[in-house]
Amino acid sequence: MLTDRKPIKIHEAIEAVLEFAKEGEIEYIPIEESDNRILKASIKADHDIPPFDRSPLDGFAVRAEDTVSASSANPIELEVIETVGAGGLSNSIPQKGQAIRIMTGAKMPEGTDAIVMFELTKEIERNGKTFVSISRKFNPGDNISFQGEETRSGDVLVEAGRQVEPGVKALLATFGYSKVPVAKKPTIGVYATGTELLDVHEELKPGKIRNSNSYMISSQISKAGAIPKYFGKLVDDFDRCFEAVKNALEEVDVLITTGGVSVGDFDYLPAIYEKLGANVLFNKVGMRPGSVTTVAEYNGKLLFGLSGNPSACFVGFELFVRPWVQIFLGSKKPHLQMVHGELKSDFPKANPFVRFIRSKMTIESGKVFAEPVGLDKSGVVTSLANSDALVVLPGGTRGFQKGDTVTILLLNGEGGTAIFKEKRS
Amino acid sequence: MLTDRKPIKIHEAIEAVLEFAKEGEIEYIPIEESDNRILKASIKADHDIPPFDRSPLDGFAVRAEDTVSASSANPIELEVIETVGAGGLSNSIPQKGQAIRIMTGAKMPEGTDAIVMFELTKEIERNGKTFVSISRKFNPGDNISFQGEETRSGDVLVEAGRQVEPGVKALLATFGYSKVPVAKKPTIGVYATGTELLDVHEELKPGKIRNSNSYMISSQISKAGAIPKYFGKLVDDFDRCFEAVKNALEEVDVLITTGGVSVGDFDYLPAIYEKLGANVLFNKVGMRPGSVTTVAEYNGKLLFGLSGNPSACFVGFELFVRPWVQIFLGSKKPHLQMVHGELKSDFPKANPFVRFIRSKMTIESGKVFAEPVGLDKSGVVTSLANSDALVVLPGGTRGFQKGDTVTILLLNGEGGTAIFKEKRS
Repeated sequence: MLTDRKPIKIHEAIEAVLEFAKEGEIEYIPIEESDNRILKASIKADHDIPPFDRSPLDGFAVRAEDTVSASSANPIELEVIETVGAGGLSNSIPQKGQAIRIMTGAKMPEGTDAIVMFELTKEIERNGKTFVSISRKFNPGDNISFQGEETRSGDVLVEAGRQVEPGVKALLATFGYSKVPVAKKPTIGVYATGTELLDVHEELKPGKIRNSNSYMISSQISKAGAIPKYFGKLVDDFDRCFEAVKNALEEVDVLITTGGVSVGDFDYLPAIYEKLGANVLFNKVGMRPGSVTTVAEYNGKLLFGLSGNPSACFVGFELFVRPWVQIFLGSKKPHLQMVHGELKSDFPKANPFVRFIRSKMTIESGKVFAEPVGLDKSGVVTSLANSDALVVLPGGTRGFQKGDTVTILLLNGEGGTAIFKEKRS
Repeated sequence: MLTDRKPIKIHEAIEAVLEFAKEGEIEYIPIEESDNRILKASIKADHDIPPFDRSPLDGFAVRAEDTVSASSANPIELEVIETVGAGGLSNSIPQKGQAIRIMTGAKMPEGTDAIVMFELTKEIERNGKTFVSISRKFNPGDNISFQGEETRSGDVLVEAGRQVEPGVKALLATFGYSKVPVAKKPTIGVYATGTELLDVHEELKPGKIRNSNSYMISSQISKAGAIPKYFGKLVDDFDRCFEAVKNALEEVDVLITTGGVSVGDFDYLPAIYEKLGANVLFNKVGMRPGSVTTVAEYNGKLLFGLSGNPSACFVGFELFVRPWVQIFLGSKKPHLQMVHGELKSDFPKANPFVRFIRSKMTIESGKVFAEPVGLDKSGVVTSLANSDALVVLPGGTRGFQKGDTVTILLLNGEGGTAIFKEKRS
């Protein structure tokens, strides 16, 4: 029974974990399967965009000099000698008095240097020939999209570490990435502890509850970008637990256990770490919930001993496991995005420790607010489902009031670069 | 060639599309595969949480009346007659002077009415028996988690229409949803038009560019919650195009085409809608980009004719297709989340039409800002990848300045209930 634990500060705990962070390998996957994956290499333009001078409009490619004298009073007429669609190339070179009908996106025909849009022209059929009437002057370069004006060959378009979103996918396609270089996902094992736990398909029995943490954590693992591997429940026998943990470690990059790290008679994890000879980085953190969060390292692999309490388990994952995963994937923003906002309701209960309060973030009239959810006991269960942020309340002797500025960690944000750090030392 | 198109207002266009919105069917999928799916039924508690009075601590279950006289000067001793782990049940009923050692989560033993935490006790072995020494008084109910104090059987915990996130998953597991009732995903077909388009694996050729829209749109479809089905490129022949569109419609819930809706010679879509006998809802919208966005309806199915211009295609999807998909899935927030914020840089170019400017949203000191990306031509390509919001600039004769309050549509937000609507009539 471990009762003499020394709590360390939250940021020290995160830093201790990240000493064992490492970047994973690259793999090449079909572009069709690349949504939400993290790029392991920067995306570079291997050609100019546009790749050639082209028409941005449906209209006529002309020699600007032919239009010098055009006016509404004296429109000029040019003979239309060819039509070029997008993707087509002109076969002829217009001479004085000639033009080429051209569609949006088509390459500028040789010999032409301006585009006149359909809307400003009139077409005339005469003697089996087609003429276009133009009633104003155009200058060389008018209405041309020039080669390279959007992007030059060699430009870095998206940095490594970014997630593939629809806009990124468009760039990957534009530059021919039929295979996309992405970070290989780490595999995170999950073992639940607790003889009170029933599986989701089991009927309730007296004294038992269903295991919700493993499902929640597996979801968090997927959301963080890794592959969850659920091993089941650890049985209530130390030797078998020890073997199970040891064997699981062989199959995963990181192993999470939920429960079993507190001071109860069947909280085997501390003894398992000891028997393994694992290096316990910390076994108590100055925070609520999740103070018993324990992290150990064995042969370079991390074992996260998260609390069996659902809130503590959730917070422990987001603070400690998520950044490890994101760094493995090469993300430049491994932490939860941290913003500030106004507390939307009083939070009167003081606590000597830093607290992470599950909350709902809203934006009203351009300002950020956060409302704690599940403040009373009757909200504990639903607060799991209704929060998209964690409000961080510093430890102290007073409560907090509506309107107070608080730190907010966004659960669905774009990630952040900074580690949460308590202000007081 | 369709040149006499009458633009309709953006919100009228959205409303016209949503007249053909309908909710899709329900399907039951394993909880393990339910991440990010949308719940088609509300999640109800089918039992109390906690399901029984239980200990929230590791400690001793006592009869409070036995501790009435306890003080540090005169600690009382109770005989420990049994140990109950979480998930276990007590076999004995403590009589006067007896206690049961109990672990976090275990059911309160019959006959006990308070929990004393380990930290406030001392255990003593004497004559082969174990005693616990307690040095203060406890009242009936102290440190007990009472049945139903978190949730009552029958409470609605999560409403239908919500997405499965880690916290929702925990509830699903708690209440035994091994199969989860979710909305069946609609299938959205995609046909690209444009003879200039090369596939992603093809080498660049003069006059050609790679097809990026189909990949981008497929990503947007997945992100919106539907299944993309890419049919390839429509060939450059009207009759074959017509057959292809007609056949594709049989296989999908909605068909998107990119390109082919403008006024060029090979823009077949308007003629295809006509030959089909489809009901064209609109073929011009008062907005930039995407003014040529066309939507038609045929036998209750929608055909979205999005522009071939990547920005216009992107915006057209988010404004018109996304809400249709989200309503099909049963979401209560089908539109992009709309917030307000400060423009972070000048946007001097005036335009008579409402514009959607790809932008990056940031939060600084509790306030929302938006910075247009890709303002100049050289940013067009990368702006695809670097925006997470659309700033909406009303049409008018003046530009916009840094500090102006603008409407912002969030591409990665939680969705919204309101349709964007121009202020002026």
